[in-house]
Amino acid sequence: MAGTPLRVIPLGGLGEIGRNMMLLEYGDDIIAIDVGLMFPEEDMLGVDLVIPDFSYLREHSDKLRAVFLTHGHEDHVGALPYFLREFSAPVYSTRLTDGLIRVKLKEHRLLDKAELNVVEPGEMIEAGIFDVEFFPVAHSIPDACGLIIRTPLGPVVHTGDFKLDHTPVMDQHTDLVRLGQIGAEGCLLLLADSTYAEVDGYTPSEQLVGESLRNILANTEGRVIVATFASLISRVQQILDGAVATGRKVFVTGRSMIDNVAMARQLGYLEAPDGVIVGVEEMYATPNKDLVVITTGSQGEPTSALTRMANGSHRHITIDKGDTVVLSANPIPGNETAVFRNVDNLFRLGADVLYNRVSNIHVRGHASREELKIIQSILQPEYFVPVHGEYRHLVVHARLAESVGVPEGQAFVLTDGDVLEIDEDTAQLAGRVSADYVYIDGLGIGDVDAEILRDRAHLSTDGVVVVIVNVEKQTGKLTSAPELLSRGFVDAEGHELLLEEGRDVVARALQGADHITEIADTNATIRDSLSKFLYDQTRRRPMVLAVTVEV
Amino acid sequence: MAGTPLRVIPLGGLGEIGRNMMLLEYGDDIIAIDVGLMFPEEDMLGVDLVIPDFSYLREHSDKLRAVFLTHGHEDHVGALPYFLREFSAPVYSTRLTDGLIRVKLKEHRLLDKAELNVVEPGEMIEAGIFDVEFFPVAHSIPDACGLIIRTPLGPVVHTGDFKLDHTPVMDQHTDLVRLGQIGAEGCLLLLADSTYAEVDGYTPSEQLVGESLRNILANTEGRVIVATFASLISRVQQILDGAVATGRKVFVTGRSMIDNVAMARQLGYLEAPDGVIVGVEEMYATPNKDLVVITTGSQGEPTSALTRMANGSHRHITIDKGDTVVLSANPIPGNETAVFRNVDNLFRLGADVLYNRVSNIHVRGHASREELKIIQSILQPEYFVPVHGEYRHLVVHARLAESVGVPEGQAFVLTDGDVLEIDEDTAQLAGRVSADYVYIDGLGIGDVDAEILRDRAHLSTDGVVVVIVNVEKQTGKLTSAPELLSRGFVDAEGHELLLEEGRDVVARALQGADHITEIADTNATIRDSLSKFLYDQTRRRPMVLAVTVEV
Repeated sequence: MAGTPLRVIPLGGLGEIGRNMMLLEYGDDIIAIDVGLMFPEEDMLGVDLVIPDFSYLREHSDKLRAVFLTHGHEDHVGALPYFLREFSAPVYSTRLTDGLIRVKLKEHRLLDKAELNVVEPGEMIEAGIFDVEFFPVAHSIPDACGLIIRTPLGPVVHTGDFKLDHTPVMDQHTDLVRLGQIGAEGCLLLLADSTYAEVDGYTPSEQLVGESLRNILANTEGRVIVATFASLISRVQQILDGAVATGRKVFVTGRSMIDNVAMARQLGYLEAPDGVIVGVEEMYATPNKDLVVITTGSQGEPTSALTRMANGSHRHITIDKGDTVVLSANPIPGNETAVFRNVDNLFRLGADVLYNRVSNIHVRGHASREELKIIQSILQPEYFVPVHGEYRHLVVHARLAESVGVPEGQAFVLTDGDVLEIDEDTAQLAGRVSADYVYIDGLGIGDVDAEILRDRAHLSTDGVVVVIVNVEKQTGKLTSAPELLSRGFVDAEGHELLLEEGRDVVARALQGADHITEIADTNATIRDSLSKFLYDQTRRRPMVLAVTVEV
Repeated sequence: MAGTPLRVIPLGGLGEIGRNMMLLEYGDDIIAIDVGLMFPEEDMLGVDLVIPDFSYLREHSDKLRAVFLTHGHEDHVGALPYFLREFSAPVYSTRLTDGLIRVKLKEHRLLDKAELNVVEPGEMIEAGIFDVEFFPVAHSIPDACGLIIRTPLGPVVHTGDFKLDHTPVMDQHTDLVRLGQIGAEGCLLLLADSTYAEVDGYTPSEQLVGESLRNILANTEGRVIVATFASLISRVQQILDGAVATGRKVFVTGRSMIDNVAMARQLGYLEAPDGVIVGVEEMYATPNKDLVVITTGSQGEPTSALTRMANGSHRHITIDKGDTVVLSANPIPGNETAVFRNVDNLFRLGADVLYNRVSNIHVRGHASREELKIIQSILQPEYFVPVHGEYRHLVVHARLAESVGVPEGQAFVLTDGDVLEIDEDTAQLAGRVSADYVYIDGLGIGDVDAEILRDRAHLSTDGVVVVIVNVEKQTGKLTSAPELLSRGFVDAEGHELLLEEGRDVVARALQGADHITEIADTNATIRDSLSKFLYDQTRRRPMVLAVTVEV
């Protein structure tokens, strides 16, 4: 196999937060690391989800040996159901991750088909030429891991999402000892989390949040409602601990929070003494001052429990003066408007609201710059590829790596689809594979394209005007006045005259038409004349759809 | 006049950043403070601008005595052209503000009609029963002022937008001495800027930015491109000073930057030695290392000069390795995506990019919490109304005021349209006036309503499907197969079968129709049957428009 290069192919997560998928290829073997999804950006109108482009794997599906999942967040496992519809390969993950993907695959009726394997950190999994070992990392979900991947050219380390938390809540440290061993051995390539490569210093420990939450529970007179991520089990544990310490009962609301709490308790990831978590009836019977509510909705999701509380439409909980709402999460970029709309509405209902800008009630799950430097110093990799982040994070991270020892020119800022080839002597970019956005909209996978998004954008700006004309087949002449129908353009009631004139404009434009005129030409004439007229009158450009009916 | 209350009526700026307008009414006199606009939120599809609701003034236009503008930012003066179309009242502002609104009113062909007055801080303007005095404040535009308004019940202080900058760049301090006099006299009511009421500590001085910029200009080898707000004249002055100090020439690009620099130089607000600011030809002739470019586009505006550079489509400037781009502005909430898209694209082109998260190259223009406390302590107002901010900022600011001395229950969190009545003994909410969003879309003022926005949102999500059926007038029977046309829904080429089946569904649904069936009923049948079919098949809900043509 001398001379065979190791190929590193990101399919997601570079240039965009949260569409993580990375392929490693050597000769006839490919492994995939994470199969995440991305939530649509604001210009992806009507799109539900975005998944990685599997085209390259489709062409080389015979080489695929295994899938390794670093942890259970959606941006790392969320595209698995779409992946497993097409590909069969064993999937490896730690216990909680496995629990989470089982729920998801069951919903998609793929559980029977999937070949799921639970692994322990330290265990070695053979996948073609690769040997893969999970190592624990501290992150905002239990059982998060990085990967040590043995290749014929040397070990590759993929950090997954991580931070260094020396006093984590659920006792999961990033395993610096194991990384030190790899560093001593000689690390060929490091792939590391870039999300907070812009942020100086260290990410604070989860313990800090625990103290804040406990203080809030101890010093607040009324009911406390805490919203956080359903997957942030350690935060839920901290709230439970605080509730026990302050003699409060806990009510859990929001579908995914209820499911995750149940699953985590069952698997032993959450501990609560009997009687602390209560149902609706018992919640009603408990005085507000003895209650904590744990809820979803920290991102302002429109149908979440917290948003319903903020809108006054939650089935069980009515916000009132005396309530304190704690948003124990930062808004993910893009969600700020929805999050702060909830904050405003909760204030309007009389609640006190504690959120990231006014209290220490959340810490990030990703490493800051000083932590990233430590990882570099421990591993001293020959090559470095920053992963997981937007393009600027990758650039900033690559520079950081060079500043602490990665030789110049050996830190590669890749974009999804780039192929990096590493051989015994050198590393270089070697072309690209397909890495488009694949949009999920309703039941459709990949059937929404740029043209459809352009049309949606056009429709969203100035609406649509439909013109129907009847022409006589024999003569090509109009048989009646054009009909005009609009939506999202102008208020029809206030604009009778405008629409009336529009019909005249169309009728006049078609005066020269005869039986030789093609329908396509007629429609073009209608579109052009009416678009121009409407723009002149309103400075708006609705989408004009023309339909010519021959009668 | 004993017993007449002072009425405080916010029409904009409360609950939403940047639609500032406040009315003060006493007996037969009303004055307006600022006539700002708001940029549309993401769910205001296709809307260009949002202006305050003038309904209440329309009903009481005979009472309107004057308009006072605190400073020249769009969110304080941008709705003036719409206002002056309807109302005539003298407008008072300081010199630079006057210069800025003249440009705007000229564009709208309203300059002749407007009665504009330039005032100096300290001057007293009589407006009905009110006497109004401007006092200087430090803010991110020169000539910014607050107002001291004498009313029969005592003085009212409106801070405008402000911060306390003890070492401002253009020598404009917030006039604490004058405020101290009012405090000594006894301040009836304080209206104060709430934008940064969440932020602890003090807002740093503009001088800090000057030092950072000078360091960048001194220590960077290549061309430096600085983007900032066109109205942030003091920042432009700092860049000019840095350029002079480091021997660089300055090229100015971006329409509003060019206009503002010209206007500010003419009025004496910007100083640059001859030959420092150069034209295109001289820029081309100057080595990159001796150049600074000052540009618009710090907010990622799609057609701005910086966005064009980032997209490789600027007429004069091509970004290359060696260039350093400095974003000397923070993204305004809502603009983050556009701003960071530019940052990513500039990095992709090889530039180094310095932005708020990685450098000290911007300071805010608004006071932080400690500064807000100082204003409270100096004025010790009897009543307090937080202005300019989203609802949460107002709540947080009201609490801050209570914590430093405003008596409990005398800090009022108002929402646009609320009427606060203050008399000699007490203050209380006294009903509401109309304060809706008034949308500007193209030439239309206020003709986009909630229904149109709902339709646009619907269209943007899943597109539109138009169905045309021809029925025979006499029998009500279809004369031909329904026609179906879609945009933004599915890729027509990949979905011939779906659309074909849709036509059949419509045809079947209409089988029972006869000549008695009303067209409206026929259209409803078409819509219902096709919507259901398409949802079942695709889980998408396009807007279905049905047109029945009788032939």
